[in-house]
Amino acid sequence: MKISELSRTTGVPVASIKYFRRQGLLPAGRATAATLAEYGEEHVQRLRLIKALTTLGGLSIAATREVLSAVDRADTTDGTLKAISYALPVPVAHTPAVDDADAAREAAAEAAARTDVAHLIAAMDWRVCDTSPHVEGLTTALRELRRLDADYQPDRLVSYAELAQAVARLDLERAAGFAESPGLAEQAVIVLALSGPLLELLRRLAQEDQVSRRSAPEAPDAP
Amino acid sequence: MKISELSRTTGVPVASIKYFRRQGLLPAGRATAATLAEYGEEHVQRLRLIKALTTLGGLSIAATREVLSAVDRADTTDGTLKAISYALPVPVAHTPAVDDADAAREAAAEAAARTDVAHLIAAMDWRVCDTSPHVEGLTTALRELRRLDADYQPDRLVSYAELAQAVARLDLERAAGFAESPGLAEQAVIVLALSGPLLELLRRLAQEDQVSRRSAPEAPDAP
Repeated sequence: MKISELSRTTGVPVASIKYFRRQGLLPAGRATAATLAEYGEEHVQRLRLIKALTTLGGLSIAATREVLSAVDRADTTDGTLKAISYALPVPVAHTPAVDDADAAREAAAEAAARTDVAHLIAAMDWRVCDTSPHVEGLTTALRELRRLDADYQPDRLVSYAELAQAVARLDLERAAGFAESPGLAEQAVIVLALSGPLLELLRRLAQEDQVSRRSAPEAPDAP
Repeated sequence: MKISELSRTTGVPVASIKYFRRQGLLPAGRATAATLAEYGEEHVQRLRLIKALTTLGGLSIAATREVLSAVDRADTTDGTLKAISYALPVPVAHTPAVDDADAAREAAAEAAARTDVAHLIAAMDWRVCDTSPHVEGLTTALRELRRLDADYQPDRLVSYAELAQAVARLDLERAAGFAESPGLAEQAVIVLALSGPLLELLRRLAQEDQVSRRSAPEAPDAP
């Protein structure tokens, strides 16, 4: 198909397709003339994945490139799952210290957060790399929470971790179900990258429900 | 305290403090001279909250302004919780249609997603507004998943929703615990906005653990 049809099929504008080409996210089409290229089903799949990662997953172009290159390197199922997971952007930013006193305070908060993370991982008996970006991300998050939350209690993290583990089991059941299919890596990306936003939206709806019930314990069933 | 001390105490650079002032996120200090202002503990608290929302929560300046104005309007606990929840940014972007055929396909996918969301809310017996931004966000997410996930099964959402509900209960227990304190709204912001990134990081660590166990069922306990 021509680029115009590729655009119609995927809902991605021609200018964006060209941009993704230049950024190395999308392989070249088969050249049929000096200025024409023929695109196939693999381009449709790839473009849908790019669109999902950048919109639903909220990934930057650079993070999308990372994830796609993990997909393309795909050798074993578990190797691919781990590579994709590590390529996902960390959802918390590290704020730089403004002066020496601040740097010292930050260092103390960081050390305390690192201990909290180590205790949690031990309590959950989680097998994760010391160099995992998720360990770093959680350390950053707890450092901020320690400073902000007057009622911060690291022990309470275990309840959250247990629920997160149950969600991760559901995710992996879905990702593993694709093991026999040729599109495994792309499906695994969808599960690993996109169940986060989904869970977040479900959690907010559940919060809204609980706030409604607190405000008006009697159901407003009457017309 | 002077602006320089406010900066040292909070770890926020002076230029950023001035920027937040101009953007209306931070109230003015008490003017002590033409070019000098005196800041107090309320400015320290507010700056820490701004920093948490923009870094840990990943909120834009505009979204942060929305959340802070909900905090400042705080009247009842539940009213505040709902206002904060609605001000949080939706974690999925809506992609525009590129042509009429695409628009028609999108409309069909949107209608199907809307039905899925309605069924899920009914199955969970969730009391949420039809106009909730979280209902819109979930509809967008499911529309994208319907198109992308060859193995999409809306019934499977119930398992995720039940876990999300358990997390929301933990969140609300924490947020409600602040009901008696004057800093309620700020603490509620911390819980509602920041437990999302925290949960996401815990889920990724749990995924990493489960992938490790799949790859090497025997624990590598030996040195």
